[in-house]
Amino acid sequence: MNWNNALTQLLKIKYPFVQAPMLGITTPEMVAAVSNEGGLGSLPIGLLSAEKARELIVKTKTLTDKPFAVNLFAHDIPTMDVPQTQAIQEQLVKISEKYGVTYTPVDLNQVRHFSYKEQLDVLIEEQVPIVSFTFGVLDKPSIERLHGQGIILIGTATSVREAVYLENIGIDIVTAQGIEAGGHRGTFLFDEPLPQVGLISLLPQVVDAIRLPVLAAGGITDPRPFKASMILGAQGVQVGTAFIGSDESLAIAAYKEQLSKTQDTDTVLTRAFSGRWARGIRNSFHDEVQQLALDYPAYPILNTLTGPLRIASQKQRNTQLTTLWAGQSASMARQKSSAEIFRSLIEGVEKLENPT
Amino acid sequence: MNWNNALTQLLKIKYPFVQAPMLGITTPEMVAAVSNEGGLGSLPIGLLSAEKARELIVKTKTLTDKPFAVNLFAHDIPTMDVPQTQAIQEQLVKISEKYGVTYTPVDLNQVRHFSYKEQLDVLIEEQVPIVSFTFGVLDKPSIERLHGQGIILIGTATSVREAVYLENIGIDIVTAQGIEAGGHRGTFLFDEPLPQVGLISLLPQVVDAIRLPVLAAGGITDPRPFKASMILGAQGVQVGTAFIGSDESLAIAAYKEQLSKTQDTDTVLTRAFSGRWARGIRNSFHDEVQQLALDYPAYPILNTLTGPLRIASQKQRNTQLTTLWAGQSASMARQKSSAEIFRSLIEGVEKLENPT
Repeated sequence: MNWNNALTQLLKIKYPFVQAPMLGITTPEMVAAVSNEGGLGSLPIGLLSAEKARELIVKTKTLTDKPFAVNLFAHDIPTMDVPQTQAIQEQLVKISEKYGVTYTPVDLNQVRHFSYKEQLDVLIEEQVPIVSFTFGVLDKPSIERLHGQGIILIGTATSVREAVYLENIGIDIVTAQGIEAGGHRGTFLFDEPLPQVGLISLLPQVVDAIRLPVLAAGGITDPRPFKASMILGAQGVQVGTAFIGSDESLAIAAYKEQLSKTQDTDTVLTRAFSGRWARGIRNSFHDEVQQLALDYPAYPILNTLTGPLRIASQKQRNTQLTTLWAGQSASMARQKSSAEIFRSLIEGVEKLENPT
Repeated sequence: MNWNNALTQLLKIKYPFVQAPMLGITTPEMVAAVSNEGGLGSLPIGLLSAEKARELIVKTKTLTDKPFAVNLFAHDIPTMDVPQTQAIQEQLVKISEKYGVTYTPVDLNQVRHFSYKEQLDVLIEEQVPIVSFTFGVLDKPSIERLHGQGIILIGTATSVREAVYLENIGIDIVTAQGIEAGGHRGTFLFDEPLPQVGLISLLPQVVDAIRLPVLAAGGITDPRPFKASMILGAQGVQVGTAFIGSDESLAIAAYKEQLSKTQDTDTVLTRAFSGRWARGIRNSFHDEVQQLALDYPAYPILNTLTGPLRIASQKQRNTQLTTLWAGQSASMARQKSSAEIFRSLIEGVEKLENPT
């Protein structure tokens, strides 16, 4: 199989394979493992201070000399409505008590939300070659500044309209995210109603609508959807859920073990954890928030509020009050090293090409 | 390309390609065109009397001597709650007046709902070789009776659980219907919440879970998803939306013309027309019923009530109060003859195999 194409040339990688940035799951070790194997690891630094971001980037650079991407959250910084925020926090305390999870709510006076704009200096100083972003789009000055440094930009589209938008603002590569994908939706234009397009429909329509190289995302935890995505016109794939159970993942054991038991219909789209739509294994927190019909303040306010509750739930090995992001093909995820997961996907596609 | 496989052998067809049964769209001419080209046409007879069903089957047999399938609706016959039904009818009249569509509401005393069980004699007498079904599953005596006549049975699954269920009750072929598909969902087990699995996730998981040949359905209006489905493990495909614009389709001109302008995000899942979930181009009727939060009585009661309104809307060339079923790849549908549509898909796949 000839893996060489416009995408691998642009990214200077051997295989057209991107490990998806998963905040709270992805470690520098995971990123480096994938990049060292010839793919592109992606380090998420959304929500982090410039100092913390630099620390993770530097750490990753000690583990690999290959290219990797750094992923930004390109949302605006919201203003908190204090009464609304307090009302939500009271509900969170009630839910935590119901499920026996003890936690200390966020001190609203201490909350500081970081903008991706505060992270740009670090990206440039650390000579990051590739930047991907989601949760909105980078503003024009940021795009120009990063492009001026020769940095390649990757955006996510959940509809043809979004893909065309990304092309028009000068982004270099588009990730087409099918509804199958785990974790947060990359939707940045109209989300009422939320675009919910299956990858097998989205991908060929995106490929036909733009000239940029397209990465396929959603459901690719197995060589068959990988190969199918290439047939549908993708130049490469982005794989997330397959790495949640990896040795290098921050996921707690109970979450890792649940993945392969997750049936195709066991995940839901939920706004319960962050206010933004995301796909995860259905659990009590989703159901409770759904029932309460809580307000969803602008991202990342709810995410900030649920943060300590999620961490406390994880510490108690309780999967009911924390995020269990997973795509619709989670059942095909396995607990191995990131390098093994990467190689089994690449070799699996090669075997589909040349069955012997 | 070698099209010969277990599915084509079982169905005695040349290409592993099934034209989806679309009640109100599919004609004997469409069915015969696809079967004559070496695929499998499917004639829908759901909701029809035995006499009407026989008439259509006989007509199709005059147009082709090749195998074709007949499609049944395997729902139970519901009892009408008269006050509920009248209340719905009053709302329908209001909607019709708002949009200037004149129609005569159903006379509730004249309503007769036919069971698929009344159609079995005709299928056997007319020596139909293949029967597909949806909107529920055939009961055990019906399965045994049809199997006793050597009739091959095809069921639809929208989840792995449903595919396993169909295998366990002795069905011969499973159509895995991705969330991309136009028209009614084949869901027959739990529909709260409705399974909404993308084909790229559903197909490999279904193929791994059962031993039966699997047909892929949803988004296949182009050679790329056709070929991708085969990579994902399907033995063949079922194609619906691609034929709505065909010369042999009953769709009105305004509907046919709208298809290729339908973007990936322009369709919605709606219960407004029949009470059962179905995907179509969003229009006023969907929005109105959504807003009214109408009750959804057991199928096909609402379908019966909306019937004359839909027909009146079509007669007035008004696309706002009738069904505009379409899948998420509708933009790739073209207005040609059914034979041309069929051949362009087959030849397109052959070209993907051997690009010259």
